[in-house]
Amino acid sequence: MCESAAYVQKGDKLERIMENVVSVDPFEGKVYLTDLLGEQKIVDGSIKEIRLMEHKIIISE
Amino acid sequence: MCESAAYVQKGDKLERIMENVVSVDPFEGKVYLTDLLGEQKIVDGSIKEIRLMEHKIIISE
Repeated sequence: MCESAAYVQKGDKLERIMENVVSVDPFEGKVYLTDLLGEQKIVDGSIKEIRLMEHKIIISE
Repeated sequence: MCESAAYVQKGDKLERIMENVVSVDPFEGKVYLTDLLGEQKIVDGSIKEIRLMEHKIIISE
């Protein structure tokens, strides 16, 4: 399975905000995250980096 | 394996530009893509959407 966890970078720490993310849509200063079950979370920020092998989506505020 | 293919959206078409992408770093109007072998490609644009279950990274110009 290829779902990832989403993290928000706060200073030099990563705060895990969502598990099993399957889609990521950045739009107008927000990032829309959707998980395996179809639940959505919207966070202020932009995509900083994506590491598929580490299953990490990192968002900066 | 969780690598994906990267596509650039041109009008209503998706042009496949890289296979086996493992990391994605958007920065200052460019998207830096790195594949399994460590090769890098830099494209003008921003991340439009990521569909992990379809292994698709879509960049809009």
